[in-house]
Amino acid sequence: MSGDPYDPERFRSLGHSFVDLLADHLAATANRDGPVLRWQEPAAKLQSLPPLDGTADPEAPLALLQRLLAESNRLHHPRFVGHQVDPPLPLAALLELTGALLNNGMAVYEMGPLQTAMEQRAVDWMCRHLGFPAGAAGVLTSGGSIGNLTALLAARQKLPGDAWRNGLSQGAVLVGEQAHYCIDRAARILGCGEQGVVRVPADDQFRMRAEALPAALWQAEQRGRKVIAVVASACSTATGSFDPLPAIADFCRDRGLWLHVDGAHGASYCLSPKHRHLLAGIERADSVVWDAHKLLLMPALVTGVLFRDGRESYAPFAQEAGYLFAQDPRPHDRGLRTLECTKRALGAMLYTSLRAVGEAPLVAFLDHSMALGAAFADLLQGAPDFELACRPQANIVCFRHRPEGGGDLDAHQRALRQRLLQDGRFYVVQAALPQGVFLRTTLINPRTNVADLQDLLAVIRELAAG
Amino acid sequence: MSGDPYDPERFRSLGHSFVDLLADHLAATANRDGPVLRWQEPAAKLQSLPPLDGTADPEAPLALLQRLLAESNRLHHPRFVGHQVDPPLPLAALLELTGALLNNGMAVYEMGPLQTAMEQRAVDWMCRHLGFPAGAAGVLTSGGSIGNLTALLAARQKLPGDAWRNGLSQGAVLVGEQAHYCIDRAARILGCGEQGVVRVPADDQFRMRAEALPAALWQAEQRGRKVIAVVASACSTATGSFDPLPAIADFCRDRGLWLHVDGAHGASYCLSPKHRHLLAGIERADSVVWDAHKLLLMPALVTGVLFRDGRESYAPFAQEAGYLFAQDPRPHDRGLRTLECTKRALGAMLYTSLRAVGEAPLVAFLDHSMALGAAFADLLQGAPDFELACRPQANIVCFRHRPEGGGDLDAHQRALRQRLLQDGRFYVVQAALPQGVFLRTTLINPRTNVADLQDLLAVIRELAAG
Repeated sequence: MSGDPYDPERFRSLGHSFVDLLADHLAATANRDGPVLRWQEPAAKLQSLPPLDGTADPEAPLALLQRLLAESNRLHHPRFVGHQVDPPLPLAALLELTGALLNNGMAVYEMGPLQTAMEQRAVDWMCRHLGFPAGAAGVLTSGGSIGNLTALLAARQKLPGDAWRNGLSQGAVLVGEQAHYCIDRAARILGCGEQGVVRVPADDQFRMRAEALPAALWQAEQRGRKVIAVVASACSTATGSFDPLPAIADFCRDRGLWLHVDGAHGASYCLSPKHRHLLAGIERADSVVWDAHKLLLMPALVTGVLFRDGRESYAPFAQEAGYLFAQDPRPHDRGLRTLECTKRALGAMLYTSLRAVGEAPLVAFLDHSMALGAAFADLLQGAPDFELACRPQANIVCFRHRPEGGGDLDAHQRALRQRLLQDGRFYVVQAALPQGVFLRTTLINPRTNVADLQDLLAVIRELAAG
Repeated sequence: MSGDPYDPERFRSLGHSFVDLLADHLAATANRDGPVLRWQEPAAKLQSLPPLDGTADPEAPLALLQRLLAESNRLHHPRFVGHQVDPPLPLAALLELTGALLNNGMAVYEMGPLQTAMEQRAVDWMCRHLGFPAGAAGVLTSGGSIGNLTALLAARQKLPGDAWRNGLSQGAVLVGEQAHYCIDRAARILGCGEQGVVRVPADDQFRMRAEALPAALWQAEQRGRKVIAVVASACSTATGSFDPLPAIADFCRDRGLWLHVDGAHGASYCLSPKHRHLLAGIERADSVVWDAHKLLLMPALVTGVLFRDGRESYAPFAQEAGYLFAQDPRPHDRGLRTLECTKRALGAMLYTSLRAVGEAPLVAFLDHSMALGAAFADLLQGAPDFELACRPQANIVCFRHRPEGGGDLDAHQRALRQRLLQDGRFYVVQAALPQGVFLRTTLINPRTNVADLQDLLAVIRELAAG
């Protein structure tokens, strides 16, 4: 690219080419053209890409775009049934383009005035759907890991002693054994070490056993720990299991403990009248994390960190004395409440997308994903050579193939997963569960149907035989 | 938007409209049409935006885009001279569109194969420009605050005692009094409290006084603290001052301390043969943070967290035992080394942009920004009614207006800043320095010229008189 890299007409022309190629990509994947993923070994992939040598190459943008389209994991392909990352609504990607070009940093209101208002509206919408009362508030941040860390910082600050000012090492979180690894990470970032993570056992559906909470609390106290929070999953990552929120909330109320719900994946189901019961009790949480880039079909990363009492949203980074003295000192200056200082226009993307498409297509998608999970489980239960890890509670289904003649089942699933990866017709992942290694699918594409899943089983049988 | 929100032809048509409106915006701002910012009070702004009510509005995307264009802080306008947030290269925004649509999550290689290779190449390029030796490595992450936290986690893990496993509260960082607030935040997130932040005094150019480091270390030890790291700024946020890296590096070498350089803003100057001397010594740092969304003209957020010894890049989240036993266990699985699990395609944007434009326009921009800082300082020194906070070392210039008749200078700058904000012809911020409140400008737009800055002074005089 020689000449002025800001030239509006060059941008216009290149922009049209990008949009056309991306539209073609959407059309091809919708039609199931080609594989989900063309596998290449990491070393060979790196080798195929020249190092940056400082020279300019005007052909690079379109050439590299074409490589990205050909070599990415194609999430819009209905046979992407792997990780819980969604095929984004194309409109949302256009908002990302807009947000990136305008680059309004949003730490303070004037660095993104309309973007700030959009974030406030999007956060209000999330709080309302959770069933939070008036006065709830929160922020959008860059992903669930950062969101959970932010919520736990608020919880830590609620303990006596002002941890922000005076430090704290003898903290602990009580968390289900099936929780996402970022909860363990957050506790260790806070300086609590492995003794600061007290695992609560799960039942045979991989849900936290609420009746084991008193023992976990006792264990934390025996270790001389102050409990920062009880962390419930709604739902868990590996199997999509919903912890029993009402019983956990009762326990937290009785013991005066902060309840944080990691709803990164499952909180979106509160939009569905049919499935919202799975989240009953979430309105009693002190804080909730909700990823819009999972089941709200936004691109990564856009996560709500939501507080039932909105004043707590100032607690995570309590160095600003304003927090101590005012109720809601500067609701429009988002940087007081997020780990990011410069921040992307997450609210503009979420607000505009929701405004445009409304809730109905999202509810239809959520219900479809649930129905598909149940239908896939039925298929698997009806197949003598497959075994379900548990009846799915959401759109995540874990299962394993049981070949005739038996053998090492874990090794068999791992080998199958590797063959699926190299085959590319489907994208499937794996999970290590207490009973062994399982294949894991997330049904997160509105176009995936039962015929796709029947074909998946046929492909697995083919690869197992081959 | 009724109908299928994934319809490729609707995306194509809407995408072309978005590109055209954004191209028009680039043309208008390049021509200095209109104000930088149309000020509106936060409450009125929020009021102007309807709450989300769940209904669909097919007109919303273009209507809201037009509002975003009209009501954003227009960073591509050459008279945006406020915060250190850049006017992104339009090409980079197209890569954001691509990254958002493809949504390849990148925690593991197969969730973004080419994107991972691009990140590796971009990180290698950064390490090379810092002057790091072979074996250096790092990751891209979502912003400088998260980047600095990540680097300090690596430093903490280097202390005896395995803080990841066993916790740590009696840590401390030694940091210049002019460092960005996120360093203080990071130490408090780690549970070190306010005693864990030991401030090293600055000289009259706002640079850390390296000769004060022994006293700071003694102070930390008196408090019973283990020093996690010395954090140098290159450059500082408020005044763009470069801490003396060679002397700080000598101190760290002699005392066996981790040296972290927050180069969020200034590290990019290592690309310029003319100005790279400001960063002499950075190649001796154990870790460096470098924001590509400041002086590399990328959209927020894309930050390199770079380690002289690449093996240390596995230290921040050391729960993976692999870190302890292997040199570079899975260089292609980025999730082991970033706070984010799902991660945006930051490397694809940076690699493709650098490949397309090459280094020459960036070096020209960096040199221009420096020359403009010096020219603006000359203007201010030649004006009897203005006072410079210090001779700028980079593209950040702090100054204050001294009205005839004197009075409360701080209140005067604050009032002026508020009038500038509401006037909108320029965007300028303010900084609280030890000697009082100053107006603060960052010269970060390649199109800003000396005539713009002359006009800025004229506008300030006009507003001061009015």
